[in-house]
Amino acid sequence: MSSTDTAPALPADVRVGVIGVGQMGADHVERIARRIKGARVAVVTDYFRDKAQQIADSVPGCRVAESPEELIAADDVDAVLIASPGAFHKDQAIACIEAGKAVLCEKPLAMNPEDAYAVVEAEKASGGQYVSLGFMRRFDREYAELKDAIDSGELGEISILNCKHRNATTLPGFVDSMMVYDSAVHEIDAIHYFLDEPIREVQAILPVPGPRAAEGQHDPMLLLFRTASGRIVTDELYVNTDSGYEVRTEVLGSQGIATIGTEVHRVTTQKPGGQWGGSIPADFRPRFIDAYDAEVQAWVAAVADGTNIAARSARAWDGYLAAATCEAAEKALTAGTFVPVTVRPRP
Amino acid sequence: MSSTDTAPALPADVRVGVIGVGQMGADHVERIARRIKGARVAVVTDYFRDKAQQIADSVPGCRVAESPEELIAADDVDAVLIASPGAFHKDQAIACIEAGKAVLCEKPLAMNPEDAYAVVEAEKASGGQYVSLGFMRRFDREYAELKDAIDSGELGEISILNCKHRNATTLPGFVDSMMVYDSAVHEIDAIHYFLDEPIREVQAILPVPGPRAAEGQHDPMLLLFRTASGRIVTDELYVNTDSGYEVRTEVLGSQGIATIGTEVHRVTTQKPGGQWGGSIPADFRPRFIDAYDAEVQAWVAAVADGTNIAARSARAWDGYLAAATCEAAEKALTAGTFVPVTVRPRP
Amino acid sequence: MSSTDTAPALPADVRVGVIGVGQMGADHVERIARRIKGARVAVVTDYFRDKAQQIADSVPGCRVAESPEELIAADDVDAVLIASPGAFHKDQAIACIEAGKAVLCEKPLAMNPEDAYAVVEAEKASGGQYVSLGFMRRFDREYAELKDAIDSGELGEISILNCKHRNATTLPGFVDSMMVYDSAVHEIDAIHYFLDEPIREVQAILPVPGPRAAEGQHDPMLLLFRTASGRIVTDELYVNTDSGYEVRTEVLGSQGIATIGTEVHRVTTQKPGGQWGGSIPADFRPRFIDAYDAEVQAWVAAVADGTNIAARSARAWDGYLAAATCEAAEKALTAGTFVPVTVRPRP
Amino acid sequence: MSSTDTAPALPADVRVGVIGVGQMGADHVERIARRIKGARVAVVTDYFRDKAQQIADSVPGCRVAESPEELIAADDVDAVLIASPGAFHKDQAIACIEAGKAVLCEKPLAMNPEDAYAVVEAEKASGGQYVSLGFMRRFDREYAELKDAIDSGELGEISILNCKHRNATTLPGFVDSMMVYDSAVHEIDAIHYFLDEPIREVQAILPVPGPRAAEGQHDPMLLLFRTASGRIVTDELYVNTDSGYEVRTEVLGSQGIATIGTEVHRVTTQKPGGQWGGSIPADFRPRFIDAYDAEVQAWVAAVADGTNIAARSARAWDGYLAAATCEAAEKALTAGTFVPVTVRPRP
Repeated sequence: MSSTDTAPALPADVRVGVIGVGQMGADHVERIARRIKGARVAVVTDYFRDKAQQIADSVPGCRVAESPEELIAADDVDAVLIASPGAFHKDQAIACIEAGKAVLCEKPLAMNPEDAYAVVEAEKASGGQYVSLGFMRRFDREYAELKDAIDSGELGEISILNCKHRNATTLPGFVDSMMVYDSAVHEIDAIHYFLDEPIREVQAILPVPGPRAAEGQHDPMLLLFRTASGRIVTDELYVNTDSGYEVRTEVLGSQGIATIGTEVHRVTTQKPGGQWGGSIPADFRPRFIDAYDAEVQAWVAAVADGTNIAARSARAWDGYLAAATCEAAEKALTAGTFVPVTVRPRP
Repeated sequence: MSSTDTAPALPADVRVGVIGVGQMGADHVERIARRIKGARVAVVTDYFRDKAQQIADSVPGCRVAESPEELIAADDVDAVLIASPGAFHKDQAIACIEAGKAVLCEKPLAMNPEDAYAVVEAEKASGGQYVSLGFMRRFDREYAELKDAIDSGELGEISILNCKHRNATTLPGFVDSMMVYDSAVHEIDAIHYFLDEPIREVQAILPVPGPRAAEGQHDPMLLLFRTASGRIVTDELYVNTDSGYEVRTEVLGSQGIATIGTEVHRVTTQKPGGQWGGSIPADFRPRFIDAYDAEVQAWVAAVADGTNIAARSARAWDGYLAAATCEAAEKALTAGTFVPVTVRPRP
Repeated sequence: MSSTDTAPALPADVRVGVIGVGQMGADHVERIARRIKGARVAVVTDYFRDKAQQIADSVPGCRVAESPEELIAADDVDAVLIASPGAFHKDQAIACIEAGKAVLCEKPLAMNPEDAYAVVEAEKASGGQYVSLGFMRRFDREYAELKDAIDSGELGEISILNCKHRNATTLPGFVDSMMVYDSAVHEIDAIHYFLDEPIREVQAILPVPGPRAAEGQHDPMLLLFRTASGRIVTDELYVNTDSGYEVRTEVLGSQGIATIGTEVHRVTTQKPGGQWGGSIPADFRPRFIDAYDAEVQAWVAAVADGTNIAARSARAWDGYLAAATCEAAEKALTAGTFVPVTVRPRP
Repeated sequence: MSSTDTAPALPADVRVGVIGVGQMGADHVERIARRIKGARVAVVTDYFRDKAQQIADSVPGCRVAESPEELIAADDVDAVLIASPGAFHKDQAIACIEAGKAVLCEKPLAMNPEDAYAVVEAEKASGGQYVSLGFMRRFDREYAELKDAIDSGELGEISILNCKHRNATTLPGFVDSMMVYDSAVHEIDAIHYFLDEPIREVQAILPVPGPRAAEGQHDPMLLLFRTASGRIVTDELYVNTDSGYEVRTEVLGSQGIATIGTEVHRVTTQKPGGQWGGSIPADFRPRFIDAYDAEVQAWVAAVADGTNIAARSARAWDGYLAAATCEAAEKALTAGTFVPVTVRPRP
């Protein structure tokens, strides 16, 4: 990884181009600059050029590209990380495929199932594999251990998955559809990750909203999913708990019932007044910061070794499944019954 | 409570008559004989007279009645405990009401909503209060603490209740309807206990059965309840876990999320081989034996002080609500959608 | 247990005489009156006669004795419960032995080892067994489970016991010697209960006192015990935590490490502000109320069946061992090194 | 960090020289090569030249030095990581100081307090700061959180620290002194880290050994430390539990009692047979692998920014304190009473 390498045609570090340097993109730049081995941020671009310049100035050897297109095509970019607004993901991902460059695309892959399917088809047509999708929970240590436990068969046959997703608070304007597209989408991918099969139908159960729910928002809510083989998944979403960030998963198998996410605390304390306990993180960062790091590190390693996509990583097809399921879940918000998920054949 | 009492017309101890001395009835006889203060078993009866005689012989001063009718009418019976098969409960409970004697009736109150309603009406017509129903979980210390936390308002407004009900195993022939009438019925009463409002509709979600489920049985299954005010309750039933007995309840409130039932273990151990943990009780006894004792003790105290029904106890009306909800839940097993619960007005 | 009993010479209920009706004695009267099956409080006595009369008036059929001596000798007293100040325990216990009546004596058995030994000798000389000592923790369910686990051999050979004893607060004037005689004495008996062997030496380790420790008080402190077979027990005493009441025991065995006392909570809650946890009881009552009930119920059963002393119960010999160990522990407070415990042979 | 840097005199990555590529050294090489951002292994050396060559061949751009002296002096080495046998640490650390190069030295700093003090003096005399000592637990997330909680004052004044150190098994020949120098040394440094003051005296409490203890080995054992301000620390060492690897710390403060290390599990499972629980890691790796990574990453960052020593890192003085305390603890193994720790003034 230095000028003494014997294979001079290869870049010393993977040179990453980052499209979009808002909160998420800037985090990725900082991550790659400080913690990801074997990569450096070579080029950034953003709709707000000043912001892009400011970020570039903070990273030795980093320059600003005038447009996503220029960045994707640039000779000094080996791989692309897309952190632009979701509406641009599809076109940018396809441009990366066409340029033959590995891409780590933040969720969502596209704004609707059709567009997501277009990315799947483009990658298939290219004959290569390029697209990793930013469902970083797959790289969380607990998720990975649970996935391995399921795959090993030690839990027996799985019938039910219980998921819980809690936020302390949400921004104003967080309507029901955002509970599907921004929150539940993570559990939707987790279902595909853990169970390795598509979701067939989805139902929304809407209890009386809590007093902190915005006008018209159903918080908490319950989504029910039925998979192709007939397994049931419950996803309880509660995004204004006023408490903390929590993500739990319980798997009911015939040989064991396994749970993750209950031990988010580290220091347990007894306090004056007769209370014991610990603190719950305020947001997702303490819970999943390591998963983001692991995801990007695994991606960089995959790019460096030419496989482009890490073993645990979500792919374009997972992005398509998520888009198709979210679309059905959105319909389910008002349907009052199970709504089928339409999934086209995998190319 | 001795011969020196100044009110000689009152019995020293509450003299209890027990109808039915199968497993449950015999347990109650042993309970009253050994652990319940202020009561003694005075008379027992059973379809199997030999069994009744054997039980009576084990208790000083206990005799056998020829029939439930004779027992209920007997001068040496102050209060009646019904532990006969469910089909006889309605008539025996009404006979107690008509005899003006307090009765603790094991669940169910009756075999259908109409019969249960008849008991409610009979008690109303009597102008007194006589009927306690054996939903003993209300007397479990954790249930009571959670009920008090809800009623105190410290959890804020409740939107969702999550219940889990797990058995290690069930007897052969435990069909889906028994999962409703024998298992879910406990959570159904718990909903009425915790939330103090009737259930309006119920839906059954049936995942692919686990490998230990009997032919035609859906185990695990998920029941969804919606209450009059729009709260949602999930009840996950899994009666062949091959693991142990567990009952959990989680309450989602706007000021707190409270959980009971996760700490059924007492001794935590680390063992050779790198495992830590504890044991799960094989059946309901270690979990709820104290609740049975507390229930009967509270009932005896209520009988002794003339109120007849303990503050926490389920009543005939709760038995009617449970019967009406179970009937709807049974229909829901095949309906595939929410089924309304028909509840007549409270007399 | 009624007037129809065929053995009229026997009392219907065990008639208990209670000596001393201060806080502890009054609790026992209320316990026997309300929760203990097969017994009633027949006679009470107290240095404050008015208090005794008031308590007697609250219990049907209960009278006041003029003195402990009269109570012990009374025909209408089958068994005696001593809850008087500790300085009187020795003489009252010996009087019970001489009267041939079972006695449950609150701790301590006596104020010094010699007096305690005198009780042991008196009981030996009587040829009977009469004395139960009120170390009620032996009847706590967790203690009993741990004791059974040790005795069963499932934990292998035991090398170390770790005990922790925490109070939220203590009354003014709670000096170091009271930390030995009032607090550590419970763990001292627990050592004898769990390990079934005497303590040979004891050392006190005194850290810098916390800011709430009274002048001259060493709180927290650490006592170290070495048993006859060479096992080590640590006892951490912290009686002004300002938090809650907690008692923990950890056993290090060659086949397992077992812990009790960590799960004193029942309802676990997540609260606004990102905290999760539960409450710690303010004093010993929620933790050990059931143990007191179980202790007295077991004693009553033992009296009724003529064995007089329950299987789990502490005896006069245990009281002597505790007294001898406390005496050494008090010396250890200033010795700075291990102090031997002098134990005379068991008669 | 690339050829476009504007400061060409500086190395792109910190070029690390690793002395000793046995298990620990090879782990560090692999760590730096795969996970540590901003560094690369430039030179390695080892007594076994073949092993060094094999390791060097696995890392692009890495060469073998003929000796530690050559490595320390080399122009292509910016900083040195010492993973040689402990007997060589002192001389190699001093050589690094004299060469003006930052060094991360695995524990121990030296084989005795005098040699450790010589390193402290050498660094003092140099006028710079060069020496980081490999007490990696300081970088464990739980340790760091607990340290921050103590330093923030939220736990109030600290009186007692309870440490537990458990291994599933040890290699043959693990004598008592190794329990001090290899195991307890970690808690000794933790005491200095958490309490920021030296230890004044130490006592060893030796219970009857467990059945797996080797001939002459006292396992488990208990070490007691008293610090300069009078705080007490218990360190329970049990290195043949046959169970798993566990490290716990409990801090007793006047405003709170905090515990770390009890939640080493991630997936909690219920299993057939009525058991619940999780697995305990077999050795220190799952528990502390992240701490090693964090330690080396922090060191690299400190070297890159010229401070040389990370904020949380142990220094030569900590190594001296550990050496002085271990020497006293070894004497305490046979002393039977508190043994003073002799600490010279900090230069």
